Amino acid sequence: MNALENILAHRSIRKYKADSIPENILTSILEAGIRAATTGNMQVYSIIATRDQEVKNQLLPLHFGQKMIAEAPVVLTFCADFNRFNQWCELRNAGPGYDNFLSFMTAAIDALLVAQNCVVAAEHYGLGTCYLGTTTYMSEKIIEVLNLPKGVVPITTVTIGYPNETPGLTDRLPLDAVVHYDKYNHFDATRIERLYAAKESSEEYQKFVSDSQVDNLAQVFTQKRYTKKDNVAFSKSLLAVLQKQGFMNNDLE
Amino acid sequence: MNALENILAHRSIRKYKADSIPENILTSILEAGIRAATTGNMQVYSIIATRDQEVKNQLLPLHFGQKMIAEAPVVLTFCADFNRFNQWCELRNAGPGYDNFLSFMTAAIDALLVAQNCVVAAEHYGLGTCYLGTTTYMSEKIIEVLNLPKGVVPITTVTIGYPNETPGLTDRLPLDAVVHYDKYNHFDATRIERLYAAKESSEEYQKFVSDSQVDNLAQVFTQKRYTKKDNVAFSKSLLAVLQKQGFMNNDLE
Repeated sequence: MNALENILAHRSIRKYKADSIPENILTSILEAGIRAATTGNMQVYSIIATRDQEVKNQLLPLHFGQKMIAEAPVVLTFCADFNRFNQWCELRNAGPGYDNFLSFMTAAIDALLVAQNCVVAAEHYGLGTCYLGTTTYMSEKIIEVLNLPKGVVPITTVTIGYPNETPGLTDRLPLDAVVHYDKYNHFDATRIERLYAAKESSEEYQKFVSDSQVDNLAQVFTQKRYTKKDNVAFSKSLLAVLQKQGFMNNDLE
Repeated sequence: MNALENILAHRSIRKYKADSIPENILTSILEAGIRAATTGNMQVYSIIATRDQEVKNQLLPLHFGQKMIAEAPVVLTFCADFNRFNQWCELRNAGPGYDNFLSFMTAAIDALLVAQNCVVAAEHYGLGTCYLGTTTYMSEKIIEVLNLPKGVVPITTVTIGYPNETPGLTDRLPLDAVVHYDKYNHFDATRIERLYAAKESSEEYQKFVSDSQVDNLAQVFTQKRYTKKDNVAFSKSLLAVLQKQGFMNNDLE
């Protein structure tokens, strides 16, 4: 399968067989990960590859009990990481100036490009993967469990294992919902209606709406799945984590 | 070439032939991009595909004059984007609660996974790519040029075109510099010395050091390439952009 076919076949896999991932395959996936572009070749990221069942069990409630955390043979936590780089700078009498928000974003970008490379590589080996958004929600406690030092913030988590389900492709909006040529092509109500028509009329999503006892699909998101109340609480905790991990010193001393 | 070989062959390409990218190939790359995992299938990102020479010329100084912006046939700007999603929610009487920092991070993560998928797909077609970190530095002015509405923040930029150079693979630190098994494996000075030894002794980097008139490679980064002064200035402007684009309302009204 070539890279394009590989990417087009992506499904999130949430159920895994008990089989472990051979060491050489895991290493190959990680080696592919770190070929991703990185700012100034600083590699300001880290990958925590958790296989130990006890550590996975500690992570499980932090990921809201999503059971692939406990069941997948490998849980990869991708982190923005200036810790190693800063330690090197300090050993070399080079005062690191990376305790600020821009540097956090630089490191988060690095980490996410590596994550997606790892996902494509894992799927090349017939493995299934699933991203967990809970990582940014619960970063403070994930830092405790994984023993992450100052300068390190977990950004996303990917579970990997041999698939024990065969879901269909997930729908996507028409390409022109997300692609704009040259400059941004602003939306009016007619265009929004057209872009969301297929999604809103699908049986799968109509079931979401009736199960959630709301009026429409948008309300499933705003009232049930991604509420303002949760987002605000998680925003506060994530900003506190950036402060604590040393990324919010945005003034020159 | 399979997906793994594709990923392992990655080089950043900064010099392009004049050839344009056929429409069907660009579309295929973007279609591959949007197969990336996205939080709750909300697709809270957008891709600005700029081909117009005048717009590219306007972007050029914002990317510090890096000439691949003007010379690449296509410049892709990947954005965190809650604008379309919010407009849909508002049309459906579903009050969106996405004007906060957590939602910005959710959208930025979405955008970056799509970006890396596009890069892998572009390379599948024999195209070369280059990420530009200047996007987060100069986001305020990029927003003006690309006419990005509230709810949209540019995160990274990728130039794409047919390669007109054949650089070698870029070095990477040993895998154990960035991979930690189970939990974080803290560094001591001996380990840092070992991890950076090959890089520091390479001729290419030694030339960096002498050209920069500093004592060592770490100082090239801290004193020349990514200085505290710049990072602090860019942190302030990026945080101001998040505020202006509507992502820093972290209190429940």
